[in-house]
Amino acid sequence: MPPARFSGRTPVTATLSDDLKNLLDAPVFVTVATIQPDGSPQLSPVWVKRDGDELLFSTTLSSRKAQNLLRDPRVSVVLHPADTPYVYAEIRGSAALSTEGGPELADELSRKYTGKDFADFAPEPVSGERVVVRITPHKVVGRL
Amino acid sequence: MPPARFSGRTPVTATLSDDLKNLLDAPVFVTVATIQPDGSPQLSPVWVKRDGDELLFSTTLSSRKAQNLLRDPRVSVVLHPADTPYVYAEIRGSAALSTEGGPELADELSRKYTGKDFADFAPEPVSGERVVVRITPHKVVGRL
Repeated sequence: MPPARFSGRTPVTATLSDDLKNLLDAPVFVTVATIQPDGSPQLSPVWVKRDGDELLFSTTLSSRKAQNLLRDPRVSVVLHPADTPYVYAEIRGSAALSTEGGPELADELSRKYTGKDFADFAPEPVSGERVVVRITPHKVVGRL
Repeated sequence: MPPARFSGRTPVTATLSDDLKNLLDAPVFVTVATIQPDGSPQLSPVWVKRDGDELLFSTTLSSRKAQNLLRDPRVSVVLHPADTPYVYAEIRGSAALSTEGGPELADELSRKYTGKDFADFAPEPVSGERVVVRITPHKVVGRL
């Protein structure tokens, strides 16, 4: 359960436009923002997959972003395609973490972005249990 | 002056590597993260300029990111070149805003990224006073 301060209002779930869905279904890198223990922002580029209106990315349980999201599930994702630099979308939402399907998602994303299984792309990956981060969008802003 | 909760320790100023300086001097888009009034993250892609070890970007005083930074100067910037997607740097620091030189920085950045003066690139720009956001880096992380 998130801390009480996040439950003051029920967030509305946002839907993604067809244009945004198409952009997310291509192998586009996105940047994920989480909140550090001191309240400052933390950023990481990640591979991403869409499941309906939700976004999924893969990381390790011990990573800074996973630890931040376990403490504060509020997350923002920016999609900014390199070939259309004046188009972008920011997807704000909340994240839920699960170890179920962790290795499978890493493989699926690796095939989407590199054409290879994850072990072939990253033969010495960062050690640690892989987790699935599922983001439910609450608001989409930007210039699409 | 920043609120007392940010002055508990004096942040160390970080220096940028030569590789990172070279990447920043090219017309690479970066993503800036600020903190919303409710403590959640907010993201925007921006043009950027380097001045020594500091980063400068242009926005309007009324923009969400400027308003956020006036309230909480903690900022993070991610640089993630499209042509080397497994190279990135996250630059965490603090931001100071000034209206001095605002229009000039918008022109300088527009010429860097588009080859045109800002008024020619964006003949109907967002209205509002232009501000210079100067970021002093405190920590650099990533994979360079």
